[in-house]
Amino acid sequence: MLGEFICKAAHEMIRIGIVGGTGYTGVELLRILATHPRAELTAITSRTEAGKPVAGLFPNLRGKVDLAFSVPEEADLDNCDVVFFATPHGVAMAHAPALVRAGVKVIDLASDFRLKDIAQWSKWYKVEHSARELLAEAVYGLPEMNRDQIKSARVVGNPGCYATAVQLGFLPLIEAGIVDPAHLVADAKSGVSGAGRKADLGIMFSEVSDSFRAYGVAGHRHHPEMIQGLAKAAGGPIKLVFVPHLTPAIRGIHATLYARLISDADLQTLYETRFGEEPFVDVMPAGSHPDTRSVRGANTCRIAVHRPDDSDLVVVLAVIDNLVKGASGQAVQNMNLMFGLEETMGLDHVALMP
Amino acid sequence: MLGEFICKAAHEMIRIGIVGGTGYTGVELLRILATHPRAELTAITSRTEAGKPVAGLFPNLRGKVDLAFSVPEEADLDNCDVVFFATPHGVAMAHAPALVRAGVKVIDLASDFRLKDIAQWSKWYKVEHSARELLAEAVYGLPEMNRDQIKSARVVGNPGCYATAVQLGFLPLIEAGIVDPAHLVADAKSGVSGAGRKADLGIMFSEVSDSFRAYGVAGHRHHPEMIQGLAKAAGGPIKLVFVPHLTPAIRGIHATLYARLISDADLQTLYETRFGEEPFVDVMPAGSHPDTRSVRGANTCRIAVHRPDDSDLVVVLAVIDNLVKGASGQAVQNMNLMFGLEETMGLDHVALMP
Amino acid sequence: MLGEFICKAAHEMIRIGIVGGTGYTGVELLRILATHPRAELTAITSRTEAGKPVAGLFPNLRGKVDLAFSVPEEADLDNCDVVFFATPHGVAMAHAPALVRAGVKVIDLASDFRLKDIAQWSKWYKVEHSARELLAEAVYGLPEMNRDQIKSARVVGNPGCYATAVQLGFLPLIEAGIVDPAHLVADAKSGVSGAGRKADLGIMFSEVSDSFRAYGVAGHRHHPEMIQGLAKAAGGPIKLVFVPHLTPAIRGIHATLYARLISDADLQTLYETRFGEEPFVDVMPAGSHPDTRSVRGANTCRIAVHRPDDSDLVVVLAVIDNLVKGASGQAVQNMNLMFGLEETMGLDHVALMP
Amino acid sequence: MLGEFICKAAHEMIRIGIVGGTGYTGVELLRILATHPRAELTAITSRTEAGKPVAGLFPNLRGKVDLAFSVPEEADLDNCDVVFFATPHGVAMAHAPALVRAGVKVIDLASDFRLKDIAQWSKWYKVEHSARELLAEAVYGLPEMNRDQIKSARVVGNPGCYATAVQLGFLPLIEAGIVDPAHLVADAKSGVSGAGRKADLGIMFSEVSDSFRAYGVAGHRHHPEMIQGLAKAAGGPIKLVFVPHLTPAIRGIHATLYARLISDADLQTLYETRFGEEPFVDVMPAGSHPDTRSVRGANTCRIAVHRPDDSDLVVVLAVIDNLVKGASGQAVQNMNLMFGLEETMGLDHVALMP
Repeated sequence: MLGEFICKAAHEMIRIGIVGGTGYTGVELLRILATHPRAELTAITSRTEAGKPVAGLFPNLRGKVDLAFSVPEEADLDNCDVVFFATPHGVAMAHAPALVRAGVKVIDLASDFRLKDIAQWSKWYKVEHSARELLAEAVYGLPEMNRDQIKSARVVGNPGCYATAVQLGFLPLIEAGIVDPAHLVADAKSGVSGAGRKADLGIMFSEVSDSFRAYGVAGHRHHPEMIQGLAKAAGGPIKLVFVPHLTPAIRGIHATLYARLISDADLQTLYETRFGEEPFVDVMPAGSHPDTRSVRGANTCRIAVHRPDDSDLVVVLAVIDNLVKGASGQAVQNMNLMFGLEETMGLDHVALMP
Repeated sequence: MLGEFICKAAHEMIRIGIVGGTGYTGVELLRILATHPRAELTAITSRTEAGKPVAGLFPNLRGKVDLAFSVPEEADLDNCDVVFFATPHGVAMAHAPALVRAGVKVIDLASDFRLKDIAQWSKWYKVEHSARELLAEAVYGLPEMNRDQIKSARVVGNPGCYATAVQLGFLPLIEAGIVDPAHLVADAKSGVSGAGRKADLGIMFSEVSDSFRAYGVAGHRHHPEMIQGLAKAAGGPIKLVFVPHLTPAIRGIHATLYARLISDADLQTLYETRFGEEPFVDVMPAGSHPDTRSVRGANTCRIAVHRPDDSDLVVVLAVIDNLVKGASGQAVQNMNLMFGLEETMGLDHVALMP
Repeated sequence: MLGEFICKAAHEMIRIGIVGGTGYTGVELLRILATHPRAELTAITSRTEAGKPVAGLFPNLRGKVDLAFSVPEEADLDNCDVVFFATPHGVAMAHAPALVRAGVKVIDLASDFRLKDIAQWSKWYKVEHSARELLAEAVYGLPEMNRDQIKSARVVGNPGCYATAVQLGFLPLIEAGIVDPAHLVADAKSGVSGAGRKADLGIMFSEVSDSFRAYGVAGHRHHPEMIQGLAKAAGGPIKLVFVPHLTPAIRGIHATLYARLISDADLQTLYETRFGEEPFVDVMPAGSHPDTRSVRGANTCRIAVHRPDDSDLVVVLAVIDNLVKGASGQAVQNMNLMFGLEETMGLDHVALMP
Repeated sequence: MLGEFICKAAHEMIRIGIVGGTGYTGVELLRILATHPRAELTAITSRTEAGKPVAGLFPNLRGKVDLAFSVPEEADLDNCDVVFFATPHGVAMAHAPALVRAGVKVIDLASDFRLKDIAQWSKWYKVEHSARELLAEAVYGLPEMNRDQIKSARVVGNPGCYATAVQLGFLPLIEAGIVDPAHLVADAKSGVSGAGRKADLGIMFSEVSDSFRAYGVAGHRHHPEMIQGLAKAAGGPIKLVFVPHLTPAIRGIHATLYARLISDADLQTLYETRFGEEPFVDVMPAGSHPDTRSVRGANTCRIAVHRPDDSDLVVVLAVIDNLVKGASGQAVQNMNLMFGLEETMGLDHVALMP
């Protein structure tokens, strides 16, 4: 592997394939890669849209991306340097082994390579995992947690959007061991694009606009991923109640996190120290309330930490753009790491505000 | 007092005055009272809009309400049966004593008559309370808690919108004594109309649309009101962390409540029993997720109770329309009780959905 | 027919069936009829939801409507006094003849009984019309145009939402013969609920929120309906360019109408005179700009007429709630007329604002 | 002037000052210039916010822009190469003459240097124009119309947002002389950010969300600007009825334009030819309907042209982001032209979609 990114080190372009480019994480990859100085888009696949120009489906790409969708068989993915899977779960695990054998790196934006516990994965996704060996070596692509392993990974499981915000928000507390690990609460709110680009009654405009609701209180697929990451950080078991909500915004996740302090600490300093060198985590001044629009279109996680009066609870507010730091931006960040590029390359977007 | 609502018992109309009718709770009172079979709107005051027809400011009232705004001095409020104060805090306490002496009942939609602890009130509102005697006899107007006292009250302090949702959601747990009272969490989300009808940069469309944020984590004026009500229900001190959020919807509050169970119970039955006779509290079937639009324009609090797997936490979801059950609808419900009318009179609106 | 509504004249209830109650016009009929003093809901049909309580699908109806969906065969529609079809086109024409023979009045909220020109209808809807005789006697249910015929109709074709706003807006000008009938322009904007309750990619929240677009410039099914009505009012042919747009609101149609004056008139007086007796058309003062929220949930069409400086064009602004005056409210208005009830019965909702 | 952009031709940075940086066009200039390869932000002024970091007010700029606001007197604007005025009207005309004398180029995003007819300007803005000589030489900054003059201009009046969309949409028709110039209609819809960043009741979230309305039918300040540009293109007088509307979106203008054809033409070819070389005007395929989100955050005007059946009217649909091609992006485009840079430099943003 090392050889590969050395041979790419100069100004050679990275040949990129995208499998499943008709969803929101697909078009977002295109938005980001279209201006990435080292990215060469070589193929984007879709069975249903094969032959059509990508910019026909996504007019924001007119004049920016000239590719047409192709069927996977004709996409010559084996000759890519890296392939992103922006597909539903189950697709990456079917195709990744052959690609890796061909020397292609794989970044899966779905869940196939996130959970190490195969039983858990099968329980939530109702199928057997078909690439267990590759899963064993796959790296969970949260750079703030696994940067070094990502650099040398052949397969990266890109984190879920909720999981990114919740883990980044809790990490300093958990790593410092200063909160009760058995009573963590993550009250998370997501914009509607988190549900993907699909015709589903529950995410029609007239159903979710001017309204607000929780969902999945009984259980959510992203839950075990958070448990896995936080338990690893804690060095022992943790318990987390996770309640996702749908808010009438297109993009954005706001995680409001609650934990009980079991020993004292200067929380502001703890967070600033933990994330001081991180290019994509911004700890706001004490007393701040980040809004999701402040990261709209940007690969940033913005965090504020609060200690309400007269309570032993700490409240953490963490926001990301679910399609950027929660999906495609983080995937490009991982690509940069995997190819020895500057980690921030092509990811300098300023959030769109207002 | 008893004499009064007896003499109104037949089909006599209730003469109603509204002080401060230019805000959202004012126009919402008008919307509800315009079709209330026993309501006779006699005056609505506003210094800034005096002389202008109400329907000029609120075109939804064209053809429905013929009143013009008047200055308070000319509104002849002493001859009303009841006066609603839809004003900022501090106004009702200045005028209520004289009205009560004149035999007029008072319902304050602001905070002047909510908190029994005058020191707390002064701390949050930065003024002295000028009607302490009346405050002592005032009744906190949450009918599900204080129905009998409201019936004979001369002055009612109508609950805040957050406080209504949070208290109704926690009440069964607290009254049953089955949760740890020292670690309650209320993660609440409000539509923007909760901030009132005022020109304020922070609630402009371009500032809050397509975004989401928390605010006031360090402290919120509605907090002591919740503490007061829940402590009373608990029969002892409670601690509550309350984090309000702003969601890009016009109306609606969604309170997501977390508490640690200290003894077991059939939560669904507990809630159904507690609220079984309540006309305006709807306990949904187990596993439900109420959405705020399901109460848009209606005087209903809809609740679902959840017990996540593998946790000793209970999660309660409670939604209201902040302007109806959270303000003007509840005020009319209180009026109905105070005048011996059917509690639901004029409050049969079906929520607007979609 | 006359006998029927005489025998209903006292306080007898009107037995009502609804075919196809799972769409937005269906739930809106239920919202309105739930508080209509003479309505007795006896059946609501849906093949896909048969057996389920209506309030399970639409929680705003919990405690308001106790009906469950039934399959059409078991709904005993023949014993209703009136049946509303809240179905896609083609359903009403299949069932109306038998119902009418059984003495049941029919109000179709789709297009089957709107267009007298069968060829036009077939061109747009791609099927043959199967109830031509009934179509011949059916009355176009715009009360402001055809009140008397509606009173004695057995079958009413309830107007489309766009067609209601555009026709009401143009009527005074056209009837007065003071505008060039060959160059009418209707630039109309609709909330998303106008597209119905269906899982369609183009009306997902993430596709239409925070955006705006035109559609169907090349032709729209509602166009011939407008042409038919306006030509009848003009007593001769008219030409109309109609451009519909999708705006990120749930409800509401705003029609901005342009016509060239060919003779002078006091436009404000013309409109006030034409609609002075109409209970559901509100002509605003000169210089006004109605907003769609001012009719949200109400059966009102609010209109303002403008004459820009330095131009021979007149600009008319007309707003309705597409689900009320543009569909279900107007259908109930028609029902009231057909049964000799007060035209406004059950339709006194004050618009929800904010 | 020529000397200046020659001496900047290599890789020297352009020193930039912004006057009035607290509005939406100000923060948008910062968003764009923060990643412009030749821009060096040297000063941004605001009396009210002097001393505060820009990123405190606009958290999207945290880590991107290090500047603090300064009072104009201390901003050393005379040493800038160019100063942008993102101020209300009247400010630029007060300060531009001295700056120009000091060799600084000026781009005014307000209206001071747009209208050549001083009487018109004074009529709409209610003040005298204080920089008449500079106005005489100022160039109207619509590159698609005045590219060459902009290149050598010392002062540019950056077009208004409505005016940009309306003029670009009409230009090919007007220049070709194939439409009746006396009956142009522009029905335009704007997102709320077009009203600026100010606390005004009419643009509060609860007032404009989930609603739609027209405004200013009697007259709008941008009207004479459109008239001036279109008349110049027509080579004679034109008449235009302009009706602006407010749509519940943050960004975006959608202009729907109507004109009567007086001679025939291949409209699609006409538009493709006129704009074929334009980097920021995208003519879509025949039959298309651009949506405003397809240009969100991008400096693009996307246009479709339609010819409805059975009519002599042409319908043009033109969309822009009001803050980018309608304001700050176009201003940077003008800056690029004025300094001999690549016209597209720093303006390669892909629109954020969804």
